[in-house]
Amino acid sequence: MNILKDKILRDGIALNSEVLKVDSFINHQVDVNLMKKIGIEFANHFRDKNITKVFTIESSGIAPALFTSLELNVPMVILKKQNSKILNDNFYTTEVKSFTKNTTYNLTLSKNYIDSDDNILIIDDFLANGEAAKGAIKLVENANAKVAGIGIVIEKAFQPGRKALEDLGYEVYSLARIKSLDNNKIEFVN
Amino acid sequence: MNILKDKILRDGIALNSEVLKVDSFINHQVDVNLMKKIGIEFANHFRDKNITKVFTIESSGIAPALFTSLELNVPMVILKKQNSKILNDNFYTTEVKSFTKNTTYNLTLSKNYIDSDDNILIIDDFLANGEAAKGAIKLVENANAKVAGIGIVIEKAFQPGRKALEDLGYEVYSLARIKSLDNNKIEFVN
Repeated sequence: MNILKDKILRDGIALNSEVLKVDSFINHQVDVNLMKKIGIEFANHFRDKNITKVFTIESSGIAPALFTSLELNVPMVILKKQNSKILNDNFYTTEVKSFTKNTTYNLTLSKNYIDSDDNILIIDDFLANGEAAKGAIKLVENANAKVAGIGIVIEKAFQPGRKALEDLGYEVYSLARIKSLDNNKIEFVN
Repeated sequence: MNILKDKILRDGIALNSEVLKVDSFINHQVDVNLMKKIGIEFANHFRDKNITKVFTIESSGIAPALFTSLELNVPMVILKKQNSKILNDNFYTTEVKSFTKNTTYNLTLSKNYIDSDDNILIIDDFLANGEAAKGAIKLVENANAKVAGIGIVIEKAFQPGRKALEDLGYEVYSLARIKSLDNNKIEFVN
């Protein structure tokens, strides 16, 4: 998605060879017109997949997921991060390790908002090691529902997330694929 | 806002006299078409106030804030909740006590995304004691910027949040004002 790549080149900062700072338009301050275009792009790509719900992980995935949901005219569900395990039969829970932040959290989903007929599109802002997306997939599989695909705003293609998700049999559609952040220079895969 | 009140009456659950559960359309599963209407309502109400940015607090405020921003054509900024103090000169930070959840967190704002010319609309999903909104106001005041008003999706009018914010001199515009949740019955102010 060229408008996104141009924005990343203009306003993104390669802090080091692992971290791309995009908090001027994605993570902290949000460019809502860009997010709307991103949502439309995801919706167009997955439109023929009979998506019933869009899932995202709080909180940076909410903006792109919201516009995707709007465009597909389906509900969005925000998977919640909890520090402690929810001891409640009404929730699916799975532990997620964030390598980027070196933390562990429990990703949770109320059983009320998924059933076995659902066909879920997962949207997130970043794909690095794929742990968050794998957690979301696990929650969907717990409900015997289907994952229709995974939409990612920015993929760090030098990290193993895409391969992990594709090995599980899922399609990953990323709008910007970063090849390298070495020497504080942002390079795309293509 | 009648469409919101009807939805609250239909799908909201008064768990006890303090807690209104709206996680089927606001907090966990999100009714995006309703959120869009909410955003348009806030934008229409504050349209003549020369808003430069919409601020919200992660993560349930993001959906209504995003549509408000889109409609006003201004950036949104997500104020971040941190468990530990950020020791970084580039951030404004203030401590917020959540009475509802009996927790304390640090609300943070990068200095890059506010300046003294800004005229900020604060949007949040709930108003109870007003602590989160007061935290957001403090961050704006730290930057010598102005708060143009506060837009709230659901106000628990039996709690002191509105009075606290009005006493500070700010306008509170709530789309649904709950008078009472006693006996598991949802009653509106008007």
